[in-house]
Amino acid sequence: MLIEPGKLLAQINSPADLKQFRKDQLVQICEELRQYIIDSVSVYGGHFGASLGVVELTVALHYVLNTPSDQLVWDVGHQAYGHKILTGRRDKFYTNRLYKGISGFPKRKESEYDAFGVGHSSTSISAALGMAMASKYKGDGLKQHVAVIGDGSMTGGMAFEAMNHAGVSDTNMIIVLNDNCMSIDPNVGALRDYLTDITTSQTYNRFKDDLWRILGKFSKFGSSAQEVISKVEGAVKSALLHQSNLFESLNLRYFGPVDGHDVNHLVEVMNDLKKIPGPKILHCLTVKGKGYDLAEKDQTKWHAPGKFDKITGEIAKKVYDTPQPPKYQDVFGHTLVELAEENDKILGITPAMPSGSSMNIMMKAMPDRAFDVGIAEQHAVTFSAGLATQGMKPFCNIYSTFMQRAYDQVVHDVCLQNLPVVFCLDRAGFAGADGPTHHGAYDLAYFRCIPNLVVAAPMNEEELRNMMYSASVYDGPYSIRYPRGQGVMPDWRKPMREIAAGQGRIVREGDDVAILTLGHIGNYAVDSCDMLAKEGLNPAHYDMRFVKPLDDELLHEVFGKFKKVITLEDGCLMGGFGSAVLEWMMDHDYQAQVKRLGIPDAVIEHGTQLELHRECGMDPDGIAAAVRTLAAPVSAKH
Amino acid sequence: MLIEPGKLLAQINSPADLKQFRKDQLVQICEELRQYIIDSVSVYGGHFGASLGVVELTVALHYVLNTPSDQLVWDVGHQAYGHKILTGRRDKFYTNRLYKGISGFPKRKESEYDAFGVGHSSTSISAALGMAMASKYKGDGLKQHVAVIGDGSMTGGMAFEAMNHAGVSDTNMIIVLNDNCMSIDPNVGALRDYLTDITTSQTYNRFKDDLWRILGKFSKFGSSAQEVISKVEGAVKSALLHQSNLFESLNLRYFGPVDGHDVNHLVEVMNDLKKIPGPKILHCLTVKGKGYDLAEKDQTKWHAPGKFDKITGEIAKKVYDTPQPPKYQDVFGHTLVELAEENDKILGITPAMPSGSSMNIMMKAMPDRAFDVGIAEQHAVTFSAGLATQGMKPFCNIYSTFMQRAYDQVVHDVCLQNLPVVFCLDRAGFAGADGPTHHGAYDLAYFRCIPNLVVAAPMNEEELRNMMYSASVYDGPYSIRYPRGQGVMPDWRKPMREIAAGQGRIVREGDDVAILTLGHIGNYAVDSCDMLAKEGLNPAHYDMRFVKPLDDELLHEVFGKFKKVITLEDGCLMGGFGSAVLEWMMDHDYQAQVKRLGIPDAVIEHGTQLELHRECGMDPDGIAAAVRTLAAPVSAKH
Repeated sequence: MLIEPGKLLAQINSPADLKQFRKDQLVQICEELRQYIIDSVSVYGGHFGASLGVVELTVALHYVLNTPSDQLVWDVGHQAYGHKILTGRRDKFYTNRLYKGISGFPKRKESEYDAFGVGHSSTSISAALGMAMASKYKGDGLKQHVAVIGDGSMTGGMAFEAMNHAGVSDTNMIIVLNDNCMSIDPNVGALRDYLTDITTSQTYNRFKDDLWRILGKFSKFGSSAQEVISKVEGAVKSALLHQSNLFESLNLRYFGPVDGHDVNHLVEVMNDLKKIPGPKILHCLTVKGKGYDLAEKDQTKWHAPGKFDKITGEIAKKVYDTPQPPKYQDVFGHTLVELAEENDKILGITPAMPSGSSMNIMMKAMPDRAFDVGIAEQHAVTFSAGLATQGMKPFCNIYSTFMQRAYDQVVHDVCLQNLPVVFCLDRAGFAGADGPTHHGAYDLAYFRCIPNLVVAAPMNEEELRNMMYSASVYDGPYSIRYPRGQGVMPDWRKPMREIAAGQGRIVREGDDVAILTLGHIGNYAVDSCDMLAKEGLNPAHYDMRFVKPLDDELLHEVFGKFKKVITLEDGCLMGGFGSAVLEWMMDHDYQAQVKRLGIPDAVIEHGTQLELHRECGMDPDGIAAAVRTLAAPVSAKH
Repeated sequence: MLIEPGKLLAQINSPADLKQFRKDQLVQICEELRQYIIDSVSVYGGHFGASLGVVELTVALHYVLNTPSDQLVWDVGHQAYGHKILTGRRDKFYTNRLYKGISGFPKRKESEYDAFGVGHSSTSISAALGMAMASKYKGDGLKQHVAVIGDGSMTGGMAFEAMNHAGVSDTNMIIVLNDNCMSIDPNVGALRDYLTDITTSQTYNRFKDDLWRILGKFSKFGSSAQEVISKVEGAVKSALLHQSNLFESLNLRYFGPVDGHDVNHLVEVMNDLKKIPGPKILHCLTVKGKGYDLAEKDQTKWHAPGKFDKITGEIAKKVYDTPQPPKYQDVFGHTLVELAEENDKILGITPAMPSGSSMNIMMKAMPDRAFDVGIAEQHAVTFSAGLATQGMKPFCNIYSTFMQRAYDQVVHDVCLQNLPVVFCLDRAGFAGADGPTHHGAYDLAYFRCIPNLVVAAPMNEEELRNMMYSASVYDGPYSIRYPRGQGVMPDWRKPMREIAAGQGRIVREGDDVAILTLGHIGNYAVDSCDMLAKEGLNPAHYDMRFVKPLDDELLHEVFGKFKKVITLEDGCLMGGFGSAVLEWMMDHDYQAQVKRLGIPDAVIEHGTQLELHRECGMDPDGIAAAVRTLAAPVSAKH
């Protein structure tokens, strides 16, 4: 269903259309664009606050730049809804984040205006610098290359790596620092403080006080001294804000701070910056959620609120007659506090995902024992390793897809040293509407090859709790992966018990075919078995719980009894759980027909988790079909 | 064989011994320590320049700190030879980097003085901050936590992530910035320029000039004005060097720069810093190779020169009667230039490994087409992705072990977008003397699960050239892994030809057992086959060339003909090449006995590549033994 655009916005189907308007009409266009975003997201859901915050910036950039020839890279991309709406996707915008619809992030396949596909943070400067370097190499000196990056993304190490290179690159590149003091949660760290400091000129004021103190001693010069002082102040202010600014230290010319909601001023500034050669940074101050009062006031809640009533601000909630299972995230958050109350070695670490991971529960309950280290997965892991060397038991919670950022640190700093860090991998398996950049598809493959690391996945809330407890008493690195969203146990607060590393369990006795599952997706297999029972088929179901170590005893039982085996995992088939089972089978001289179900070797787009599982033949129907095929009395081909 | 220490050094078997000496004896101790390093490395080889550069720092730190209770973390660890010698390992030092000997890097298992195991760069601040945070949590306010990090390592993004956290941590931590302007090669980037700038006060001088110009106009104030100016200058200098310093921006108190070769001054400064609470940074200027003239003059050559004559400085070289095969590194370097001469889209990227990877050949031949981006693997990959979006064909060369640092960027920025970046993974397989932190053991497992990525490995020089050519004309991401060291073809400059992605080849026809190999280690299988032929065994040998895609046709031939198959790879068995073969076999309904040879799921220490291959049963004898076992007429157990 189409959302009705305002009357100017209705005429804009490309940046070329936007450029037809007079500068004095831009304020109204901004208003209409903001309203369109509010109207759309309130009805269809999606990310909200970030795009509202950059409405003026978006309009100014497309008004001034010659996109798509000029390259515009949005960091992360939560904020790119306005960009999408202005670049020919307004009428498709209602399919945002839906299966087969447009992506919630910029995506090269989707539009020539999406110069670089994003999703993970802090990539934009590197990507835009690559583009700018290509233009320099080609002698295309007029082309503009713009990276729009939030102050949160700026804490990610690769942004710094990129600035270190950009500063000596002599390329035509503009970094727009979208400073709103927020990631999903409020930003943390020294950089945040620094940006606040230069915005409010605290350092400058402190220095000015010193200067006045010194100059005050020379009062005999009378009123002329005031002139000297005033001139000196100007030079010093310029020196402090420019020559010695953090970004100027890295040889990026610094401009700002400017009001990121003054579209006309932004147009002027961008027009000026286009003419200045070399790498430069424009510091824009914006407000996340700008123009929607509730979103300005509670920015974390309104980062991605789901559908809501745009008039009352009431966020839509499903109402259920019966108690519902909790989100795995909340089970993690509450259980961690429960464990930490009993074990004073336990600390919590999150890289900028307090609310997403529910680490905020511990941060609130035990503020000195839970750390948000900023968008800094690499640091989060090695910081945890440092804690572990001192006898601490860190629980480091990182989304599966973001753990890719800290892979080396897991190998080099934790596992080679066999340090007892617990990794909780949230959003493992298909992430759903966020799509391929966020699917936690690869962790089982990239984790199980690391020596010393336990790789576990719970099938339900009780198992998650037991695994967390087991990890807390295990002397070595331990990982637990679980999906985004709800579990299956409304009554989940059960007493915890230790599960030995590698110990699987039988869920259902059966014959002919055995289904070996790992993690939450095992619940699909339960449904499949129920379905198949009605057809007279009775597969066995084992919940292996661990990819590493594997349960030798249970696997001997399985392969001793079954010649037809299905493996099921919410992860990539290449090198994952099923592959581990094949290795075990071959190493132990068993021969069986094994059908592996999981994520195929392809880029799977966005949709609900169930839609994606169905697409990959991993939903209850797909599993049942695989059992039927395998159970059919046809011999192996070879 | 023991190296004779000087007479003071001979009395030092621990930091406690060192502390018994008077401060005025430290200069002599430094001299003796430096001489001991020169004497040892000239005879036994190893890393050289880095440790010479921190002799005074090492002595001062152990003199002032209460190690091992105080925590001392060396970044990378090339520079820790002096540390090892002072902490009880002098008499074992001749086993440095040898099989079963001590490690070339700090290692927790080896000594309680090695607070954190290292090898990869930029981890020290995160680790030391973790330790410092643990002390803070325990209320252990007197304990010191020191990270010694080079200016090269400082460009790695995680160092910045850690400083962002450290700056707001209120922990007792000292970062010692060992500024010698070098990694293995000269450092690059804006940070290097900045450090030079604050060291030489260029920004300050520029500002002072501005100030004089302004103040000059007020000459009527006469000589008193000079006083004003002088006071103002003092305040401004302080502001520029401190309040607005890059590190002060991140709320780290900045001290320095100090002469890193003045041991007595270092002792004083460290004693002062111990008393100052909160996170702080000491900027030390040092010279890599200090005290050995040739090493000071050619710092890259003398980073790790091998054995040499300490008097003449002549580096030992083996002399051969016949032409020798080149190093794979040099084949890469020369071939890249050859390709780039024909194809103007080709650019080269290295993260701080110009000499190690031989990218320096292209940097010299085509300075505008090859980029050293600093120790910044993440940026290197996404920068390459940006270049690729503009039609360039970047060859991004990263050691296998360091590619772990850029794993997310390979997935998220290159492969999900199917961009034609070529990854050349140097030092794949066992790295040799550098040991477990540097083994390129995991790349086959962590790369083959990524959609769109071609994963190739050449068996010899000719194949490497053909793969590089094939990659240069392939429209998608392409990776080529090869080991450290020599190939097998003295006459290697053959014309290049395209190999279709996934196409393997047969090396030797045979019967009964087929050996499928991937990459250079396939040459061992050639030796094994020759060995076995003398015993009347005649295994077939296939060089698969690609893990992904696999050669369907060839594998149908193999599994159609053979029921006994061996796979061989210089990579981890968990999820690697052998595992891919098992998956293929099962997916295509073949049944065969498959024995996988490769790196087991354990931390394998250092030694020569052959020693390590032997340990893992992957050397020619091990392969032959596996063939014999498999060929023996014993049926499968189950």
